[in-house]
Amino acid sequence: MAKSMDQQHPVKAFGWAARDSSGHLSPYNFSRRSTGENDVAFKVLYCGVCHSDLHSIKNEWGGSTYPMVPGHEMVGVVTEVGSKVTKFNVGDRVGVGCMVWSCRSCDSCSSDLENYCLGMILTYNAKYHDGTITYGGYSNLMVADEHFIVSIPDNLPLERAGPLLCAGITVYSPLRYYGLDKPGLHVAVVGLGGLGHMAVKFAKAMGLKVTVISTSPNKKQEAIERLGADSFLVSRDQEQLRSAIGTMDGIIDTVSAAHHLPPLLGLLKTNGKLIVVGAPEKPFELPAFQLIYGRKLVGGSGIGGMKETQEMIDFASKHNITSEVEVIRMDYINTAMERLAKADVKYRFVIDIGNSLQTTE
Amino acid sequence: MAKSMDQQHPVKAFGWAARDSSGHLSPYNFSRRSTGENDVAFKVLYCGVCHSDLHSIKNEWGGSTYPMVPGHEMVGVVTEVGSKVTKFNVGDRVGVGCMVWSCRSCDSCSSDLENYCLGMILTYNAKYHDGTITYGGYSNLMVADEHFIVSIPDNLPLERAGPLLCAGITVYSPLRYYGLDKPGLHVAVVGLGGLGHMAVKFAKAMGLKVTVISTSPNKKQEAIERLGADSFLVSRDQEQLRSAIGTMDGIIDTVSAAHHLPPLLGLLKTNGKLIVVGAPEKPFELPAFQLIYGRKLVGGSGIGGMKETQEMIDFASKHNITSEVEVIRMDYINTAMERLAKADVKYRFVIDIGNSLQTTE
Repeated sequence: MAKSMDQQHPVKAFGWAARDSSGHLSPYNFSRRSTGENDVAFKVLYCGVCHSDLHSIKNEWGGSTYPMVPGHEMVGVVTEVGSKVTKFNVGDRVGVGCMVWSCRSCDSCSSDLENYCLGMILTYNAKYHDGTITYGGYSNLMVADEHFIVSIPDNLPLERAGPLLCAGITVYSPLRYYGLDKPGLHVAVVGLGGLGHMAVKFAKAMGLKVTVISTSPNKKQEAIERLGADSFLVSRDQEQLRSAIGTMDGIIDTVSAAHHLPPLLGLLKTNGKLIVVGAPEKPFELPAFQLIYGRKLVGGSGIGGMKETQEMIDFASKHNITSEVEVIRMDYINTAMERLAKADVKYRFVIDIGNSLQTTE
Repeated sequence: MAKSMDQQHPVKAFGWAARDSSGHLSPYNFSRRSTGENDVAFKVLYCGVCHSDLHSIKNEWGGSTYPMVPGHEMVGVVTEVGSKVTKFNVGDRVGVGCMVWSCRSCDSCSSDLENYCLGMILTYNAKYHDGTITYGGYSNLMVADEHFIVSIPDNLPLERAGPLLCAGITVYSPLRYYGLDKPGLHVAVVGLGGLGHMAVKFAKAMGLKVTVISTSPNKKQEAIERLGADSFLVSRDQEQLRSAIGTMDGIIDTVSAAHHLPPLLGLLKTNGKLIVVGAPEKPFELPAFQLIYGRKLVGGSGIGGMKETQEMIDFASKHNITSEVEVIRMDYINTAMERLAKADVKYRFVIDIGNSLQTTE
C-alpha cells in the first residue's frame, strides 16, 4: 500500500497546499527526503509568489496534481549538508528557484542550460526521479541537490532576494543571450509587473537606455523615478508609439495576457529583437514581412541555467538589485492570490515563512 | 508637359513590360539615363525570373505601377563607366540585384546593410531619387551607381549566375547572420524552389548537414542526388517529422504559401533558429511557449547588403555554386510565368536577353 504523503519520506515537513483547482491554499503536513550525500537542506525563511503559482494552483495550464505546495522563489539558511557537498556549509544563505533536477548529460545540460533539459524537474507539481511528487517553497524546509542550490550574498536582504530566482533570471538571461546587454543600447520593457520591474533594474545596471511600455499611464512616475527607467510609453497611445518607431534595439515582453506583436516589432531598429518571456494562452499573430524588412526576430527565453542564475545573483549583489516586494504573512496568501489576479501588487508578494508559517503540531 | 517614358532619359532602351495587372508582358520602348560619373552601364545578357516578378506584374502585393519592366537578377558586360568609377572597367562581367540606391548614411547603410535602409530604391517598380521610375532587367541595357554593381568572376557561367543576386543572397545572408554556417550544424531547408535549391548548395558548401523538407515526395531523389542534401522529409508525413524532433540547429523556410510554423519549431534543438525568407500573405500563428521552451527564435531576413552580396558571389565562385536554370527566350516569358505560378520549373527560369531580345526598331 502506498504511504501517505506525510510518511513517504522520513523528514516531517509543513506548508500550505492547494487541494483542488479552486486554488484555495490551506495548511498541509507532508514529508521531505533525508539529506542525501549531494543534498543541501535548508530552513525556508521567505518565498516569493510568482504568477505561475496562481496559474498552477488553479490548474489553468493543465497538469496540476493535488495537494500542491507551490513556490519556486524560496530562500533560507542551510541546516544540513550531505557528505559530498562541496559548495555549501551549515548557516549559508541559499535559495532554490524553478528546478530541482536535470539529466546532467544532454546537450542542454552540457551547455549549462539545465532549464532546457527535457528531463528537467520543476520545484513543485512535478514527479521527482524517485517517483515522489515535488513540493515548493510555501513550506518550512527544503532539500535539494547542491547543483540546484544558489548562494545568496550577504548584502542582499533575503526577503527581497527570493524573486530574483524566477522573475530575476527570467529577464536577466535573455538580456545576456540575445546580446541586449551592451551599454548604450535602447531596450523596452513591456509590462511593469514582477518580471518587468526586475528587467528595468537589470537593464539599467547593464548601462542600457530603458523605455517602459505599459497599458497603465499611472505607472509612469514610478517607472522613471523609483525604478530608473529613461522613458515611458502608454501602449494604447498610438501617437506615443509612432514617435518611437525604429528606435529600439530590443524589447523584453513580459506580458502573459493576449496582446499584439506587430506594434512592438515596429519599434525595433534593423536587427532588432523582440523577446517574449510571458506566454499568452493563444498564439501570437506574426506577419512574416515584419521580420524580413529590418531582419528582426522574435525569440523566447525561459528562466536560466544554474551557472547563469548564480551569475545573475552575483551581478545583483554587485549592483544592489533586489525585487520590490510586499511582505505578507502565510495566512494572507489567499487574499494575496486574489490581489495578484488583479495585478494589485508592487511588485512581488513575498511570504515571510520564517515568522508566520506555524505548524499544526 | 511630362516627357513620355521613351524620351525621359537620353539613352534609348528596350525591354518587355507589363501594362496592367493582367501581368501580360510585351515589347516596350523606354529610356535610361546617361552614364553618370559614378555609374556603370552594361549590356544585359541574362536575367533570372524571380517569383516576386510574378507577384509584381500582377500587383499581388499592391503598389505596382505600369508599364513595369521587371527583373532583378540581371548580368551582363560593362559597356561604359563614369569618370569616378574605380572598381569596374569596360568588358567586365557584372550584375545588378534587387536594389539600385540607398541613402548611404543611415545606421543600416553604415553597417553595410543597404538592403534595410528605409530609403533603399528597388531595381524596378520604384521611384528613383531623380523622380523617374526604375526599370528592371527584362531589357537590353542597364545603368546603375557602381556601389550597387556586383562583379561576376569568370568561372561562373553568366546564365547561371543571375539568380545568385536575389535567390542566392536571400538564403546566404541568413545562414551567415544567424550563425548557421558552422561546419557540422544541422539545417533544414523548407521548400525546394528557386530559393531552396540555392540554400541547399550554400549550406552544403559551408559544411552543414542539410535536410530538405518539402510537400512533394518526388523531389527526394533530386534533392539528395543532384543537390547534395543529406536527407529529406515530406512535410505532410507526421511520422517522418516526429522522427526528426529536436534534431536541427536551424531552418531556412523559403515557402511563401500559407503554412504552419509549430511543426517546424518542434524540429529545432535548444537555441534553434527558424528563419523565414518567404512572406505568406497572412500572419503566422506563433505560440509563445514554443519559443520559451528551448529558447528558440523566429527571425527574418531579406536579400543582403552590397558587401555581403559580393562576398556571396565570391564564395559561390570558390565553391562552383550556381543556380540550376532553364534558359528561355524572351518571347517565352508569358508561358514561363504561367509555369512559374504552378512551380513548374527546375529551379529558375533565366531569360537569354542577349540572344533573344529583339528591338522593334
